[in-house]
Amino acid sequence: MALSTLVLRTFCRGISTNIQEFIPVSSYYGKHIRLYSDAATKQRDEPYTIRTQKDGIRTIFLNDIKKRNALSLAMLESLKSDLLHEIESDDLRVIIISSSGPAFSSGHDLKELTMREGRDYHTKVFNTCSDTMKMIKELPVPVIAQVQGLATAAGCQLVASCDIAIAAENSTFATPGVNIGLFCSTPAVAIGRAIPQKVAMEMLFTGKPIDAQAALKHGLVSKIVPKEKLEEETMAVARQICKSSRAVIALGKSCFYHQITKDLSDAYRQASEIMVFNLDLKDGQEGINAFIEKREPSWSHEFTHVNENE
Amino acid sequence: MALSTLVLRTFCRGISTNIQEFIPVSSYYGKHIRLYSDAATKQRDEPYTIRTQKDGIRTIFLNDIKKRNALSLAMLESLKSDLLHEIESDDLRVIIISSSGPAFSSGHDLKELTMREGRDYHTKVFNTCSDTMKMIKELPVPVIAQVQGLATAAGCQLVASCDIAIAAENSTFATPGVNIGLFCSTPAVAIGRAIPQKVAMEMLFTGKPIDAQAALKHGLVSKIVPKEKLEEETMAVARQICKSSRAVIALGKSCFYHQITKDLSDAYRQASEIMVFNLDLKDGQEGINAFIEKREPSWSHEFTHVNENE
Amino acid sequence: MALSTLVLRTFCRGISTNIQEFIPVSSYYGKHIRLYSDAATKQRDEPYTIRTQKDGIRTIFLNDIKKRNALSLAMLESLKSDLLHEIESDDLRVIIISSSGPAFSSGHDLKELTMREGRDYHTKVFNTCSDTMKMIKELPVPVIAQVQGLATAAGCQLVASCDIAIAAENSTFATPGVNIGLFCSTPAVAIGRAIPQKVAMEMLFTGKPIDAQAALKHGLVSKIVPKEKLEEETMAVARQICKSSRAVIALGKSCFYHQITKDLSDAYRQASEIMVFNLDLKDGQEGINAFIEKREPSWSHEFTHVNENE
Repeated sequence: MALSTLVLRTFCRGISTNIQEFIPVSSYYGKHIRLYSDAATKQRDEPYTIRTQKDGIRTIFLNDIKKRNALSLAMLESLKSDLLHEIESDDLRVIIISSSGPAFSSGHDLKELTMREGRDYHTKVFNTCSDTMKMIKELPVPVIAQVQGLATAAGCQLVASCDIAIAAENSTFATPGVNIGLFCSTPAVAIGRAIPQKVAMEMLFTGKPIDAQAALKHGLVSKIVPKEKLEEETMAVARQICKSSRAVIALGKSCFYHQITKDLSDAYRQASEIMVFNLDLKDGQEGINAFIEKREPSWSHEFTHVNENE
Repeated sequence: MALSTLVLRTFCRGISTNIQEFIPVSSYYGKHIRLYSDAATKQRDEPYTIRTQKDGIRTIFLNDIKKRNALSLAMLESLKSDLLHEIESDDLRVIIISSSGPAFSSGHDLKELTMREGRDYHTKVFNTCSDTMKMIKELPVPVIAQVQGLATAAGCQLVASCDIAIAAENSTFATPGVNIGLFCSTPAVAIGRAIPQKVAMEMLFTGKPIDAQAALKHGLVSKIVPKEKLEEETMAVARQICKSSRAVIALGKSCFYHQITKDLSDAYRQASEIMVFNLDLKDGQEGINAFIEKREPSWSHEFTHVNENE
Repeated sequence: MALSTLVLRTFCRGISTNIQEFIPVSSYYGKHIRLYSDAATKQRDEPYTIRTQKDGIRTIFLNDIKKRNALSLAMLESLKSDLLHEIESDDLRVIIISSSGPAFSSGHDLKELTMREGRDYHTKVFNTCSDTMKMIKELPVPVIAQVQGLATAAGCQLVASCDIAIAAENSTFATPGVNIGLFCSTPAVAIGRAIPQKVAMEMLFTGKPIDAQAALKHGLVSKIVPKEKLEEETMAVARQICKSSRAVIALGKSCFYHQITKDLSDAYRQASEIMVFNLDLKDGQEGINAFIEKREPSWSHEFTHVNENE
């Protein structure tokens, strides 16, 4: 059942209307696709990103090895397009952003930022980048950064913007913009919210990298593993996520990012309402009953309510 | 002297009125007691929590070993009642929440969350839980979680909600609700404010536990110790707290949670006003004079001002 | 070129007016100097702070060894004066706050906080302290705390308030005010924003110190080094900062602290605008062109725009 239909039905059942903002609406994603799809991947034969999908797990490879996976406007639009592709399908349960080559991503393509391109183009680059980073948190499925090698500037911002980040032990993270006269101010939005301010400031003011151990210590990534185990470990986390209900995860992710910026009372009021709503979902009751009856749950993955067919 | 009386006297002395919000008012606690005291601990012979108190240190044991100290409505109301018991007494200086059995707490009692109980009951469960968690930060004495074994879902939320948490090295922390179709959205309110978002998200999306070392690294607990030293170490922290003035600690705790969500200028304006107010307390001057005169301070533990008896 | 003039010119060129708030205005600093300069360092022969400057690096030594570098009103005013001295000069690129003697700083001078001094004086002490701490974040150059030995109470607040903090391995950090009846409420403003709340709370409620390793783990400092390498390592970070454009660093620092308290959308909107503005600076384009042309950049260090002389 299409999500937009569900939203309507839910509304009609008298749930308080502010619940609606927690359920991703399809028109939102359509808007993004319309805005940017015409511009993507037209400047070279190879695609900027490669998308594969199997057993609910989509992997998006950044694929511009020559430019160390620079987040050019074309790369950003290709990434965005791959993130949003059939985003409402129940076949999609988790997204991994990975990379080809020795670098995860080296950030913006500096050739796009010269005076020759002009201010309007620069504005478009930064707005597209910010939109992509914010969008990751708004997608109804978890997005995992699978990081190896260098993640610098907007590439480091991409790591900080994913829900989960798993890194190879040889990864390094830096915001070296200051060295070339362009302070990493937009990367700092994501990085400054992921790690302690002093660590962020030393990275931003010096441009020097931190290693994977420091990234883990300070919360920029949630796990580090030997390079040869990176894919295996990331897939294990992805497969674990696939065991749960897509609808429950979408609701939980949305609730998390809505409540985390609020004060404690508002956050609890909102989260408590969502808990009750979650319990009222078919998958909410199925999970609890399966647990009590000591059997495996059978998920619908949909925002269907228990009494909806009465 | 009753706190409510003090509030009035302070007000009459011309202190700016917004100071009042930093001093816990007795009627607040009465309200909570009236609302919930009739419902607690009526469903079984043994009490859900056991409260002991000695030398200013109250210990509340979660005591439902069979259900791994599930935070059932009865348990929550028993815990709340024990937290609020004679909360204004100068004999009470610090509270430790501890547990009987191998689990600290396994979170909500799932049998209370089936459809049979109905939406109103579910709402009551989550509201009571959120109220208890918020209340801990509003109590005039520090609350320490003494954690051993599993702390999961709302049990992990309880750890995150205490002012201080000291854990045995064998403790583990998890938010496994997603596995049973009920995303840990209310636990995420507390946990998402205690640890880096990426670590929280991996816990929430996978349901997999983190160990005590990771909990310390990421700030979910403030200290870890070998299991056999857990009580000794927790008591040492509690006894250290008992060496200070109850009034000064109450004022400092209240100020901390008020200022921490404000912007830097408002936070400093408020905290500076509180510092001046603190200095004006009898215990503020007693402490400084004792330090200068190289003697032990003798605390009144009350919100009495230096010039109050003039 | 004076900064205030630049602000006007920038405005006239039609940049959106809210950019102005990111460029430090000289009159701001003048205001601070006028307010406090007459009161500083008049009570003893030796200065409270010693200021040296070479190759763009200013070092301010806290110099009241006998009182363990207590942040008396005179010390705070001397520090403030040294921080603001010729702050608009392009010769100044980074500030290090260091200490003479075994303590970095022991916090407020308790003799200034007795009843004899009176409430107005206390208010002046805390306001001056808060102003100094906030001002550090508003200066157009990075401020590094170079910490050895004890940093307690307002001394610990000073560490937490600097942009970067590098500590010797023998450093310790504490908020022991509670032991003398004066809860460290203003230090808690800075410390509670730098480290996890549970760690802050255990420090604040017990007064017990944490060591340098814990300070690094929890983000109170960004780096720890053996005591004998402290100066060398701090100077290396300072020299690295001197390699970049003063104007770009000033803009980036200002943007960081403006956006970090905003919600994600507002933060990105603001930071994206600043990125475009940064690219439009002469030093922004010089850096990118130098990188593309594989040569060393030659900075103007000024807020001059590329097309300004057309």
